Amino acid sequence: MKESPGVVDLLGVLAYAELSAYARMTEDAATLAPSLADRAALSELAVAEYAHFRLLRDRLAELGADPEEAMAPFVAALDAWHAQTRPADWLQALVKTYVGDGIALDFYREAARHLEPSIVKLVDEVLVDEARSQFAVERVRAGIEADPTAGGRLALWARRLVGEALSQGQQVATARPELALLLVESARAAGGETPDISRLFATLTEAHNKRMAALGI
Amino acid sequence: MKESPGVVDLLGVLAYAELSAYARMTEDAATLAPSLADRAALSELAVAEYAHFRLLRDRLAELGADPEEAMAPFVAALDAWHAQTRPADWLQALVKTYVGDGIALDFYREAARHLEPSIVKLVDEVLVDEARSQFAVERVRAGIEADPTAGGRLALWARRLVGEALSQGQQVATARPELALLLVESARAAGGETPDISRLFATLTEAHNKRMAALGI
Repeated sequence: MKESPGVVDLLGVLAYAELSAYARMTEDAATLAPSLADRAALSELAVAEYAHFRLLRDRLAELGADPEEAMAPFVAALDAWHAQTRPADWLQALVKTYVGDGIALDFYREAARHLEPSIVKLVDEVLVDEARSQFAVERVRAGIEADPTAGGRLALWARRLVGEALSQGQQVATARPELALLLVESARAAGGETPDISRLFATLTEAHNKRMAALGI
Repeated sequence: MKESPGVVDLLGVLAYAELSAYARMTEDAATLAPSLADRAALSELAVAEYAHFRLLRDRLAELGADPEEAMAPFVAALDAWHAQTRPADWLQALVKTYVGDGIALDFYREAARHLEPSIVKLVDEVLVDEARSQFAVERVRAGIEADPTAGGRLALWARRLVGEALSQGQQVATARPELALLLVESARAAGGETPDISRLFATLTEAHNKRMAALGI
């Protein structure tokens, strides 16, 4: 295996992120969707996450890594994230899909930024989120239009999602220094001699604020 | 819409059966699988059920029916079936997938038997269960080999699944006479002048016994 351990970590955390997002979105669709059409629409997105999981698992195997072993270090943190952020209703589920996963995906994309082109391409492919974004934005905006008080509650919810994501992310970074190093390298490549961590956080914050604005919260 | 209402009912109940099986198998995979590989294997089957749901929904739309309306009459009975038969462990989940769904699928296949060829073909396509069967049979046999006392418990569980399936099926048949009529017509076609209901039950019982034997319980 000629890849750095950071690559296997990155594909491993992404693979488990997709596998657990698929399960969680499926459950939210079955238990929270207000109609069978909404349930099918969110299930469609969940199944797409599963297809991403399949790509990542196969790529790990091609790299000579055991996919189960590669995912194992991240199971506890990602399960904790989902347990801490169980949505109470349909709009919370959509905001979680869009805002919560959005932040996590931005981190993964940054970490992959300076890896070899075929890995960058794979990561971009599994992180594509146009369909998810459009669906969540449409439904959440309509929900706030129907009940303007929902906006404030969802803004609080989004803040909690960010807090939990950072908290779990920090634990992962501490436990898997190679993965954290990918982010530092990405920041270094962007900032010259000194790793420009503040630029990284500015990028992530900007993307988050754009998503909040798109939702109208 | 030139099809009989029984056809829309049949595709509607099948569509919701696939959509709910997908959600339930996904949840069982996430909560009960003993390893990430098993979790992925059952998730793979769940995602295949979702693909079947998609085919049925699209066919309903082609027939000029509203898929949501077609599924709606069956949501309560199928949700009740899943609520009454929530597996307590991994082997119960596999037996449910194989034995419980197997019986339901036999009923659907019988009901479709004398419809027009394109419907028969679609129903056969979504009811194909080789992958599910092979996976469940292998794991359950291995589980019983590892713990011989599991066989008796799983036999009891399978009996409960059959009882619940018949109870929910009876409620559906009472509420949707056109669907029940498809089964009677199938029996009549097989039995000549008198509907041969006993032959139908003999066929279903035989298929059930074959599945139990395959599991070794």
